[in-house]
Amino acid sequence: MAGIEAIDTLSLQLSRLPGIGRKTAQRLAFHIVGMPEEEVRELAVAIFNGKKKVHFCPVCGNLTDAELCSVCADEQRDRSIVCVVKDARDVNALERIRDYNGLYHVLGGVISPMDGVGPDDIRIRELMTRLSEGEIKEVVLATNPDVEGEATAAYLTRLIKPMGIKVSRIAHGVPVGGELEYTDEITLMRAFEGRREV
Amino acid sequence: MAGIEAIDTLSLQLSRLPGIGRKTAQRLAFHIVGMPEEEVRELAVAIFNGKKKVHFCPVCGNLTDAELCSVCADEQRDRSIVCVVKDARDVNALERIRDYNGLYHVLGGVISPMDGVGPDDIRIRELMTRLSEGEIKEVVLATNPDVEGEATAAYLTRLIKPMGIKVSRIAHGVPVGGELEYTDEITLMRAFEGRREV
Repeated sequence: MAGIEAIDTLSLQLSRLPGIGRKTAQRLAFHIVGMPEEEVRELAVAIFNGKKKVHFCPVCGNLTDAELCSVCADEQRDRSIVCVVKDARDVNALERIRDYNGLYHVLGGVISPMDGVGPDDIRIRELMTRLSEGEIKEVVLATNPDVEGEATAAYLTRLIKPMGIKVSRIAHGVPVGGELEYTDEITLMRAFEGRREV
Repeated sequence: MAGIEAIDTLSLQLSRLPGIGRKTAQRLAFHIVGMPEEEVRELAVAIFNGKKKVHFCPVCGNLTDAELCSVCADEQRDRSIVCVVKDARDVNALERIRDYNGLYHVLGGVISPMDGVGPDDIRIRELMTRLSEGEIKEVVLATNPDVEGEATAAYLTRLIKPMGIKVSRIAHGVPVGGELEYTDEITLMRAFEGRREV
């Protein structure tokens, strides 16, 4: 604690962010206090606007500041294939490979009994509604290759296959136990190319 | 880039902070967008207030949200000894040892010809004015034990010793090449106890 209320409050707020410990938070707080006022204002406004302007795409659950997300709104995308991911960061990671031209479905989480997250707590019902409309021919399951991600993929496979829709899982080019978000573009591309029907 | 302007703006702003790279900034931006609105508001307000409420103590240059900093305002502190540090974070680090009871003088930097920082660019003149008032009997030079910190300490020694004031340098208990801010309390205490006249 710096003993200065405004700095301590700022440190506390910053330390609530993921990966920011007590020391880093204090270092950042001191840095912010020393920044030009205009830059501090820009930072505070960007944080406030980020939350205020961004919401979930009503179709796929991706983040957007428009009515539909940029993928759903793009007329050039292949509407017969849907890639299912855990969260919007994964859409962002996959979009970086510039290779996939289909749509997405963001679950907003994965099935995890340990954390009390069941199938009804993530956007599976919304996925089923989209699939029932008949336009989608293939679902690529791109949840993380960890326990919860695999379980969610297995659950979705059992649900979707009987509908006569092709279900594939991204290849294990993505390091097992790793996170999609931190995977390099080439590995992501290989994982996409090597997807196999399940 | 997430392709969503509000998130990209937020990422960019966050990546300007020290130690926050592009990936971390984006991760934080996505996290902030997913935080409850009230928490985001608290964070933005804390950042804004941190800058708005905090200013430099007119006596010692430490950060404060009051007229004088908490050290200068404290009647119990020993006004015959002044510890000279590079910046307010160092005051914070030294205050944590709860052992030192004197005053501080924050230079707001160190002499560094490489970075174009000369003696007139840091608060050396203010220190001389304080010393000329006659109340201060000892100056502890607690700049970092790196090249610039040592050079600044040597410069100050040459300036202060002729005034008949005792000048000491914190002992090299602080790891050479290290930073005061990251030194543990015990080492800082040893460094203080082991200070020797120069």
